Amino acid sequence: MKNFTFYIPTKIIFGEGTIPKIGQEAKVFGKKALMVYGRSSIKKSGVYDVVKKSLNGAGLEVVEYSGVRPNPVLSHVLEGARLAKRERVDFVLGIGGGSVVDEAKSIALGVHADGNLWDYYAGKATVKSALPILAVLTLPATGSEMNHFSVITSDVTRQKVGLGDDHLYPKVSILDPTVTYTVSKEYTAYAAVDVISHLIEGYFTGKDPWTPIQDRFVEGLVRTVMECYERIIRDPKNYQGRATLMWAATLAWNGLGTAGIGDFGVPMHMLEHPLSALYDIAHGAGLSITIPAWMTWASRKDSRKFAQFAQNIFNIRAESIEEAAQEGISALKGWFDEIGSPTSFKAAGIPAADIEKIAENALELAKVWGLHEYTKELIIELYKLCV
Amino acid sequence: MKNFTFYIPTKIIFGEGTIPKIGQEAKVFGKKALMVYGRSSIKKSGVYDVVKKSLNGAGLEVVEYSGVRPNPVLSHVLEGARLAKRERVDFVLGIGGGSVVDEAKSIALGVHADGNLWDYYAGKATVKSALPILAVLTLPATGSEMNHFSVITSDVTRQKVGLGDDHLYPKVSILDPTVTYTVSKEYTAYAAVDVISHLIEGYFTGKDPWTPIQDRFVEGLVRTVMECYERIIRDPKNYQGRATLMWAATLAWNGLGTAGIGDFGVPMHMLEHPLSALYDIAHGAGLSITIPAWMTWASRKDSRKFAQFAQNIFNIRAESIEEAAQEGISALKGWFDEIGSPTSFKAAGIPAADIEKIAENALELAKVWGLHEYTKELIIELYKLCV
Repeated sequence: MKNFTFYIPTKIIFGEGTIPKIGQEAKVFGKKALMVYGRSSIKKSGVYDVVKKSLNGAGLEVVEYSGVRPNPVLSHVLEGARLAKRERVDFVLGIGGGSVVDEAKSIALGVHADGNLWDYYAGKATVKSALPILAVLTLPATGSEMNHFSVITSDVTRQKVGLGDDHLYPKVSILDPTVTYTVSKEYTAYAAVDVISHLIEGYFTGKDPWTPIQDRFVEGLVRTVMECYERIIRDPKNYQGRATLMWAATLAWNGLGTAGIGDFGVPMHMLEHPLSALYDIAHGAGLSITIPAWMTWASRKDSRKFAQFAQNIFNIRAESIEEAAQEGISALKGWFDEIGSPTSFKAAGIPAADIEKIAENALELAKVWGLHEYTKELIIELYKLCV
Repeated sequence: MKNFTFYIPTKIIFGEGTIPKIGQEAKVFGKKALMVYGRSSIKKSGVYDVVKKSLNGAGLEVVEYSGVRPNPVLSHVLEGARLAKRERVDFVLGIGGGSVVDEAKSIALGVHADGNLWDYYAGKATVKSALPILAVLTLPATGSEMNHFSVITSDVTRQKVGLGDDHLYPKVSILDPTVTYTVSKEYTAYAAVDVISHLIEGYFTGKDPWTPIQDRFVEGLVRTVMECYERIIRDPKNYQGRATLMWAATLAWNGLGTAGIGDFGVPMHMLEHPLSALYDIAHGAGLSITIPAWMTWASRKDSRKFAQFAQNIFNIRAESIEEAAQEGISALKGWFDEIGSPTSFKAAGIPAADIEKIAENALELAKVWGLHEYTKELIIELYKLCV
């Protein structure tokens, strides 16, 4: 166990019918809200009306800012920050999935940023403050509702970069699983992949040889995510499946699985970000390509943790740990195929000829995130496993 | 999954050499500390000097209040609260195990209480505020360092009652596993029992039929606690064992294992509190008596969860779920025997003739905690299984 600090000051309000609480929770943070969302889906689902009614009922003034896209871009953040400044809002409320919450965080930071907002993402400036952030989650996957990360893509460089800072913890996040009933089969699959990716980055890259708390936490959640998916596919309105997936997604990337494991990397995310940034595919769809590729490469150096994963997730026992590891990776890849999340460039429509360009983009990210062992040659080798 | 609110605003600073950070962390909360501790152990271990130096180095004034006993009593709390008021301290810092942290919380509450402090514990008054609470933990077991509970015993009635309120979350808790190297074999065993008890109360009494996140979290931690104990017994200075046990103890009772399971009871604690209150035995030593007794009784009504426990903790598979359940309970009781924590009244020196008196005490607690199915007759029946 390595030294760590663990601190999540986010209040989670979880369950069916909890969204009407947003007004009472929000009014603690001021009188005027910037309400950030995507396009029409929260209006179709009725979440928009419930939130507006609750905010108005609590006497709050609301400024709306919509149009957040999957893989949210800096230009839209900056426009939102200008609006928030002009309107002198007291806090930012994101209503949507991880992209919306990430953009809400970025706007909250942008309002207080004195200089170039991108400098924070590029690791060139340190966050000093941000407006309070609140969230009503409609698509579980990224864990942004209970963590301090915000991932934004630069329109100019097409760099998709994550920033982590304690000022970016939402004050309150409301999670009502029933609003996820309408999430498509496709996006439920991508969400499941994303949640699994968050769980296994630290699990496979941590250096501490004995971390039973964290390993079991991760393994338990990976199995749970798979079980939830099966329930949801049989019945999209299975409350237990939707609710359990939603809470698993939140727990998967709030620091619990990595507290005490020491330094760890996020190479599977580093390899994925260029894919969703350059080809605008879903983050989960990119991850189901990069995860098996990276695991295959990494397990060649040391199979032990991959064999443990194979055994504890898929009940695989083989002649050797090398075999077990390979069978486990195949089983995971097979599961991604089964749920319809692409496992190759070809399946996602990404041209193999672009590897050089994609690798350049990934290399920049590897530098920002301190993944120094990932040279351009190695990144190209890894992408070749993705083709 | 049932609706829940999850909110733990405690900052945990974990690891070797972290105690000198207390001064910097504490000065955010004021200029004058009430430093609460037990007797001589923190002086012998050197923790006292490290804390004093850090507080003084941060320019803080320190008022000391020592003499906290295991199963801390109300009269000592009230004296501490009077001192804290008279000295106008800004916050309360507990240095010790769960008893010290619980008393520090109670003092912090007592300073702000307008009326009778015990009313809060008796469920007759609602907490409105408390001084900020900080902790330096020297004995992991109760989880008080990251939860909102405080357990105090009335000198008058010998009622040992727990109060839960969000004002009682410590602001900061520092956990350095190396200070637990000197915890005796005996107290390490009691701590292990206590941690397991926190994990299984909700696990066995929750009503939701499908809670894979929480079940796996609990099962993983129970196994981990047992593994830690084995490591520590072989080598009391095994850092990984001590550190993992410490973090497991904190996670076991901070609400993670019970979030989403709905209403649950704490019958094994209800049965134990009278034992430690009346006979001044260690809380863990009382629990290793009440846990197998309650499990035996409860599994007769429905064996399923007990069979799951048997399988996932002890790899037990039997002909029937009833048999599996019984074998699992025997295995747990056997483990308690093995580590030297008593599993009967006789082993703990509690007279069987006192059952009536003990049951009266437990019944009061059952009322305060809303465990209405536990009538005096049932409680006596359960204590008979303890003899």
